[in-house]
Amino acid sequence: MLTLGIDPGLERVGYGVVRKVGSKIECLDYGLIKTPKILIPERLKIIHDGVVELIAKHQPDALVTERLLFTKNVTTGMDVAKALGTILLAAADTGIQWTEYSPPEVKQAVVGTGAADKKQVTFMVRRLLALKEDPKPDDVADALAIAICHCFRANFPK
Amino acid sequence: MLTLGIDPGLERVGYGVVRKVGSKIECLDYGLIKTPKILIPERLKIIHDGVVELIAKHQPDALVTERLLFTKNVTTGMDVAKALGTILLAAADTGIQWTEYSPPEVKQAVVGTGAADKKQVTFMVRRLLALKEDPKPDDVADALAIAICHCFRANFPK
Repeated sequence: MLTLGIDPGLERVGYGVVRKVGSKIECLDYGLIKTPKILIPERLKIIHDGVVELIAKHQPDALVTERLLFTKNVTTGMDVAKALGTILLAAADTGIQWTEYSPPEVKQAVVGTGAADKKQVTFMVRRLLALKEDPKPDDVADALAIAICHCFRANFPK
Repeated sequence: MLTLGIDPGLERVGYGVVRKVGSKIECLDYGLIKTPKILIPERLKIIHDGVVELIAKHQPDALVTERLLFTKNVTTGMDVAKALGTILLAAADTGIQWTEYSPPEVKQAVVGTGAADKKQVTFMVRRLLALKEDPKPDDVADALAIAICHCFRANFPK
């Protein structure tokens, strides 16, 4: 079963593709969809089309994101939510299942504590996926963490 | 010049299509795109496809929305922003120009004061567009108000 984890943003969208094989999780792909500082609708189109392309390439069984919880910068939060809207649309366009987890759920699944910091998340993502180097930047590590969380949490059909 | 005003939401998206002819503004269409309480990606698809359809039908020169400013309910605000993301994507998909105005700018343009209430906005929208009845619900009145604001504010090419 293939899972596409996505960490949305307007400037950078982190993604990670993982496969659960028995009790192990393999990393198939990860990276960033970046957008230049052009008009917002055009940036959203790059994001949407990029996710549609990832789905076409990997044919994942699920698209997974982190629940948005904003308290700090409302304007940035709105832009992240706009980006997420177009990512969820890509899921609907291609008919793949979407699931979301809260940030503490993701940290709990990957590190074992809901209060883990970014460094711990990166360390455990690298270890769980047996990567040769740290997944960077944080957007990528987060996307992989979300995908790993889904592998641990979801009830995969046999 | 044709303007499509849109008031986004996850449950209801208000829209209004107006044309500026000299100093007058004509109303060509208005209504709601409604979504049932299904999964969010499916709701976003209904919204996106509905807006694409409106653009195809009316061939507007601009799509106009109100700037999102949330202070009350963050969860609802996020859902509105997700919906707006898919609406802006529809603008990018079809290559039409997008503009946004703040709520006080819209009220100022339509009622003459940035502190106008919803009743005054509805009253002035009906009057300016010479409608036979009040545009309802508020989502529709707001969408028409946004479109009217753009007619007053934008520098239309001759």
